[in-house]
Amino acid sequence: MKRIVSNVRSSVPLVHFITNYVTVNDVANMMLACGGSPIMSDEIEDVEDITSICNATVLNIGTLNKNTIAAMTAAGKKANELGHPVILDPVGAGASRLRTETTFQLLRDVKFAVIRGNISEIKTVYSGSGSTRGVDADIADAVTEDNLAETAAFAKELSKSTGAVIAITGAIDVVADSERAFAIRNGEAMMAKITGTGCMLNGVIAGYLVANRENALDAAVAAVAAEGLCGEMAAAKVRAEGSGTLSLRNYLIDAMSNLDGETLEQGAKVEEIQG
Amino acid sequence: MKRIVSNVRSSVPLVHFITNYVTVNDVANMMLACGGSPIMSDEIEDVEDITSICNATVLNIGTLNKNTIAAMTAAGKKANELGHPVILDPVGAGASRLRTETTFQLLRDVKFAVIRGNISEIKTVYSGSGSTRGVDADIADAVTEDNLAETAAFAKELSKSTGAVIAITGAIDVVADSERAFAIRNGEAMMAKITGTGCMLNGVIAGYLVANRENALDAAVAAVAAEGLCGEMAAAKVRAEGSGTLSLRNYLIDAMSNLDGETLEQGAKVEEIQG
Amino acid sequence: MKRIVSNVRSSVPLVHFITNYVTVNDVANMMLACGGSPIMSDEIEDVEDITSICNATVLNIGTLNKNTIAAMTAAGKKANELGHPVILDPVGAGASRLRTETTFQLLRDVKFAVIRGNISEIKTVYSGSGSTRGVDADIADAVTEDNLAETAAFAKELSKSTGAVIAITGAIDVVADSERAFAIRNGEAMMAKITGTGCMLNGVIAGYLVANRENALDAAVAAVAAEGLCGEMAAAKVRAEGSGTLSLRNYLIDAMSNLDGETLEQGAKVEEIQG
Repeated sequence: MKRIVSNVRSSVPLVHFITNYVTVNDVANMMLACGGSPIMSDEIEDVEDITSICNATVLNIGTLNKNTIAAMTAAGKKANELGHPVILDPVGAGASRLRTETTFQLLRDVKFAVIRGNISEIKTVYSGSGSTRGVDADIADAVTEDNLAETAAFAKELSKSTGAVIAITGAIDVVADSERAFAIRNGEAMMAKITGTGCMLNGVIAGYLVANRENALDAAVAAVAAEGLCGEMAAAKVRAEGSGTLSLRNYLIDAMSNLDGETLEQGAKVEEIQG
Repeated sequence: MKRIVSNVRSSVPLVHFITNYVTVNDVANMMLACGGSPIMSDEIEDVEDITSICNATVLNIGTLNKNTIAAMTAAGKKANELGHPVILDPVGAGASRLRTETTFQLLRDVKFAVIRGNISEIKTVYSGSGSTRGVDADIADAVTEDNLAETAAFAKELSKSTGAVIAITGAIDVVADSERAFAIRNGEAMMAKITGTGCMLNGVIAGYLVANRENALDAAVAAVAAEGLCGEMAAAKVRAEGSGTLSLRNYLIDAMSNLDGETLEQGAKVEEIQG
Repeated sequence: MKRIVSNVRSSVPLVHFITNYVTVNDVANMMLACGGSPIMSDEIEDVEDITSICNATVLNIGTLNKNTIAAMTAAGKKANELGHPVILDPVGAGASRLRTETTFQLLRDVKFAVIRGNISEIKTVYSGSGSTRGVDADIADAVTEDNLAETAAFAKELSKSTGAVIAITGAIDVVADSERAFAIRNGEAMMAKITGTGCMLNGVIAGYLVANRENALDAAVAAVAAEGLCGEMAAAKVRAEGSGTLSLRNYLIDAMSNLDGETLEQGAKVEEIQG
């Protein structure tokens, strides 16, 4: 992990985001804080040019509309053509017909390097991935110590059918490719009280991926652990000073801007899930 | 008020926002801070599904465009159909033809539980509400101790014609239904030096309303007092440390994330306006 | 400079922004912090009304789309008609065909009071300004002490052909009209690690310009120095407390909210570039 963090800072990956307008400022500042550089563009006549000068592309459907869906498709295809990693965040997949259908359409049209979401979104992705196993029968709505093995098996299967590293984030995070799965136990409950932790993580994953193309699973695991660890440091500061949730958001990005590889390696709580 | 604050935190109302992109991040974080949960969606093919899974809907025309106006109308109608409270923030009504006309159109098509704005926006609402009394003759452009009784009468009349609780926010806030009106004297002048206090308040009102459906007036009064009180705590901290206006924004949301019912009850400066 | 800062605070210029959704919240809060007041509107049917009630207009193409390009053109023309200063920020000009063409189109259709960008964006502006000198042969990709005289000559020439004050921001800032050029050495390297410093500066320039119509060059120089100086104060605070980059953003706006003319005059590092 030490090398991953320093690689990002030395190579400054340029990441193209089509992402929701709710958390976009935090996403941009977090991208800079972890060592990369963000460009936002969602106009269909602009996105292919922008994707082409970047090193990775993040598609986040959080505030999707007809124009941005078309732009996401075009940008994703262009990134595929160029061999750039593409990250999908299917925000709200399962919560509306449009979000679910858009997720399925993007899965058909674009090859993703990483798909990141909460367990409910990832189950929706699964239902559109062509896998035949019934989802609801197998997987609970929250990842717990009790269902970790089943969640890992589910994530590996989804990784096999999509070709993407799967990152399921929540109280316990599960990150898997088709062969191996890891549980990451960094992070803090208080992080659920701010918006954007998932959206920001997409960018960190993208940056870590670009700087470490040889092993996407390791990069995604490191990114998830890094943001969780920064959340722990931020929460400790909030508790010490008795501030509150927006300070947590500020200190989370502050912590990422100071994170070095040694700190990550010592603080990461990563464990392979056997199964 | 004690019960309102705790009800929100225990029931975690889910609120659908179609709101301007300037302050949307603050709105989301404030919604979480007061105990609820936000979803933003403004694509017409998405909004009815999203409104349906939420408990309340906020329509804010701050950065309206043709697409979002249509989406606001559809979401508002759907919310009415489902019996969810809908909050209108007619940002800039009176400042442009489109904003004024959109406000009038929304008033015709959607039944609002609460309409919140500054006195100038609310006067524009009044002029489109079918009331026959001339506005400019009666009501000044700022709410002061001197015109409080007239403002209360005006707000009650507008509440009668619209069926909505009317919240006029400013140096002194006036909140009224058709029967009763209250003056709230919480808040700080420094709050005018940050953007988004009104937009954030919409969400707090929506959350308080969902958790207290039996009395919309009490819920709106409590929400207005709560944000004002949090502003006072934030301003005290800013003054103590000599920081500045963006810190005020941060501490305002921090304070809301820590607010409990006892603190609100002790700090609320609410007085019924007789007349 | 003393007078400029106090003029802004006393006159509270109202500025219409069509600006990207990444940094728009910071832009609004910075506008308020420096003493002005922001309105955001990007719907073509709304922008002429909004521009008409404002004192200046900022066009920023950071997240341009077909609708907002049309809105920028309409708002810019209206502002010209009314004699309001218009500021252009050609974000990403040169990075995509659409951004470059939009920049050129805006230069044809709108007369700008100030054009602000990094050296790469300003070189693209130059290539579309009708100037005949080849750019790449003359001007390096970063402004340094070594090429300051050439950069000044380039900026003066571009000011002559566009009629606008040219502000090239970077490690050293160069601000010029057709006659005179200044180097501003305020600011901090850490400011490159947050998004939005350029976008926020556009608003400060607009405010300073409105409050000091008699000398656009002085106003732009003062604005550039003011934000740089606030960045120095913010960075000093970040270093003292060991926080990080998002705190830098917060303290930057905090510092602007407290800035007075005396402090700016003492802290401004402005030098005329002879040549």
